Amino acid sequence: ASDKADHLSSLQKLFSDHYYTVDEQLNRDNFVHSSSPSYGPLGMELRKNILEQWWRSVVMSRPQVLGISTPHGIKSGTVGQGRTLKLVDAEVFSHILNEKKLYMEALQKLPQDFVSMRTSLLQGALEQYVHFVKVVNKKLPFGLAETGLCYQLPEGPPAVPGYPSEVMQASLVWFCSPRTSSQWLDYWARHRLQWWRKFALEPSNFSCSDTEVEEKGNKVARGIRLLYQFPWGAEPLETLYNIGNKELLQTHKGNLSTLQYTGGKKSVVPHVITVNGNIDLGVLAYLHNSLQEVKEGSNRQKQHIRKVLKLHPSLAPFKVAFDMGRRASMELQQVCEGLLQELVQGNISTWPGYWETTSLSTEQLNIRYDKMGVLFTVVINSGTLESGLVHLRSRDTAVKETMHISEIKSFLTKYIAAPENI
Amino acid sequence: ASDKADHLSSLQKLFSDHYYTVDEQLNRDNFVHSSSPSYGPLGMELRKNILEQWWRSVVMSRPQVLGISTPHGIKSGTVGQGRTLKLVDAEVFSHILNEKKLYMEALQKLPQDFVSMRTSLLQGALEQYVHFVKVVNKKLPFGLAETGLCYQLPEGPPAVPGYPSEVMQASLVWFCSPRTSSQWLDYWARHRLQWWRKFALEPSNFSCSDTEVEEKGNKVARGIRLLYQFPWGAEPLETLYNIGNKELLQTHKGNLSTLQYTGGKKSVVPHVITVNGNIDLGVLAYLHNSLQEVKEGSNRQKQHIRKVLKLHPSLAPFKVAFDMGRRASMELQQVCEGLLQELVQGNISTWPGYWETTSLSTEQLNIRYDKMGVLFTVVINSGTLESGLVHLRSRDTAVKETMHISEIKSFLTKYIAAPENI
Repeated sequence: ASDKADHLSSLQKLFSDHYYTVDEQLNRDNFVHSSSPSYGPLGMELRKNILEQWWRSVVMSRPQVLGISTPHGIKSGTVGQGRTLKLVDAEVFSHILNEKKLYMEALQKLPQDFVSMRTSLLQGALEQYVHFVKVVNKKLPFGLAETGLCYQLPEGPPAVPGYPSEVMQASLVWFCSPRTSSQWLDYWARHRLQWWRKFALEPSNFSCSDTEVEEKGNKVARGIRLLYQFPWGAEPLETLYNIGNKELLQTHKGNLSTLQYTGGKKSVVPHVITVNGNIDLGVLAYLHNSLQEVKEGSNRQKQHIRKVLKLHPSLAPFKVAFDMGRRASMELQQVCEGLLQELVQGNISTWPGYWETTSLSTEQLNIRYDKMGVLFTVVINSGTLESGLVHLRSRDTAVKETMHISEIKSFLTKYIAAPENI
Repeated sequence: ASDKADHLSSLQKLFSDHYYTVDEQLNRDNFVHSSSPSYGPLGMELRKNILEQWWRSVVMSRPQVLGISTPHGIKSGTVGQGRTLKLVDAEVFSHILNEKKLYMEALQKLPQDFVSMRTSLLQGALEQYVHFVKVVNKKLPFGLAETGLCYQLPEGPPAVPGYPSEVMQASLVWFCSPRTSSQWLDYWARHRLQWWRKFALEPSNFSCSDTEVEEKGNKVARGIRLLYQFPWGAEPLETLYNIGNKELLQTHKGNLSTLQYTGGKKSVVPHVITVNGNIDLGVLAYLHNSLQEVKEGSNRQKQHIRKVLKLHPSLAPFKVAFDMGRRASMELQQVCEGLLQELVQGNISTWPGYWETTSLSTEQLNIRYDKMGVLFTVVINSGTLESGLVHLRSRDTAVKETMHISEIKSFLTKYIAAPENI
């Protein structure tokens, strides 16, 4: 157990020292039961890249999936039963408390007057179903996808005020015929597991397991959880359920005529498959999965262990960084600046950490950039000013290639677009 | 006034008919004083593209700006004075009301126990200053950038519970020396105005004007507003203020030693420039700005007016759509499907509206795609199966070019990356 705690705390320190997170709150509780952390420049780019890949895989390449964006606060009366988070204007509150008369009555009415914050992206998609089933000419199956922040109630009894947590979720709500829903659940589970494994250094740490929802001892929904094996146990990154048509009917108050589609001979209400990913936990899983310890030095020499964050090329927050040596001249800095602008124009994210490169040696910089997961380091020195030649060091091979500065952009563009890297 | 209302309602209908918004709530109130609307597939891609361009221009190409991501709920005691939105667990609330004793006391304490929802991205950046000023080795100026949803209090007196609004904001908080702060304010105003105009069809509709913050009759902050001239008046898309160091000191409770940086001979607390854009209003501005009425037909014929949504190539939600004619064969559909996958692999967003192309004529589809702002339509017909040739129709010129289906991806990649289109 102490091994695990050590493991976790050294991970935390590594990620906050290398701009993935801002404070050292990055731990299991943060991701699983509490708020997503404050991300630094690298963490937020990594999360953005994961979201973008999710979107490309689930939405962009599928004619049957449409992207939507719905409000975080839900006004409709369909939620509000049970325990919800309300967005309350603090002054309305104290205004009522200051009214001497009738305040009990006003207070009891109050929760109904306020917006409920979403705890998942399901409700927004269920509400939009009626609009989009017309858009697709009542042809099923189709899906509505959305990514965004959701709020989760604190654990523990409601008597203790706790902080609700924030989680970045990615959601697909898939509408299909009752007859095919079971097959679609399996289809999406397979698809999603493949997707998580595609960007992994150790795909076997990602797995799936069956789950179900029970209500009063009866199984009401079949589900599949996609898990990542952390050192402290498996955590669900994404959960899929076949929830039937009950919640769709509830949302639209049983208004059958707007819900039905023409499936085969008779009109039926579609069944709903929910696919819901926790992207903050996904960030932690990929960070953990990508950290490799590389042994260096021959047997005769003392062995040295180098830590490299081998994030997948399409997830790595920054593809390029610079090493222009200590005490770089103004001219060298201008060369770097020019190359930075060229790379950004070509949509290649470049770490602009000039402040480090002038105070660290090449070896120190390599160690640093490797732990940050930067794919390539461009080494520019005074020779570059004359010859135009630079070294390009690879994170994964530690090999340096010499090339002309004018070739870097096209080399990197090709590397990033190569089929094995996307 | 009635002209304006007509103008607005026809815009609303156009945008909701063409998948930019879901309901017809897209109006001035929605964007300026109330929640951002529910976006359809096109609206959400447009907003995403605007945010991406903002990020590229403000963050990626500048070594001095770091991107961060902070929680939506603020726990610290630095906010909470004045009117704030609290995230309240409805059950904690009713639990307290059901306790017969001491509930008044518990109720009055309650607002302090809950998280305050952010109304802007300023607070998060001010809190992170202490961390990042060390990262940049205390070298000023530098900036912290973040994009995300913020919540705004309803207008009107607090006695009337109203719905708070949600706005997608893009924020840069720039820390600089007191001596240079006035110049930096002007620098960023100039830079931001140029950026808004860069993607505009009619740049002159974007302008700027001076503003200020007054407290008790004294001018406490100088500011500049970037405005868009809507038919119903000018609205601020982005606002810049020179807020000095007061709020930075407040956030860190006047802890001078952590705030100061070494500027010139003595240690000083930096001044803060805030640059804050309303991206939902930006979506509306670009939609309005890009809608062009093109006259067609020679003088002798009856003139016909065609509406084209000429969104900038880098903002257009979808670059390509298909026309495979009515009653397309299965083989043609497979050709489209294959091309769609190829384009998505090349990161070219493609409208997957198969359901329309089989029920509309080419002329109807052209009208539809022009109003959706799709840059190119690939016309595939039975001849394509034999020759491999397709027509590529341009939204902006209405001209059709013939090319081989294998050339489309590289043609579009080059078009999108051309300097005049980025």
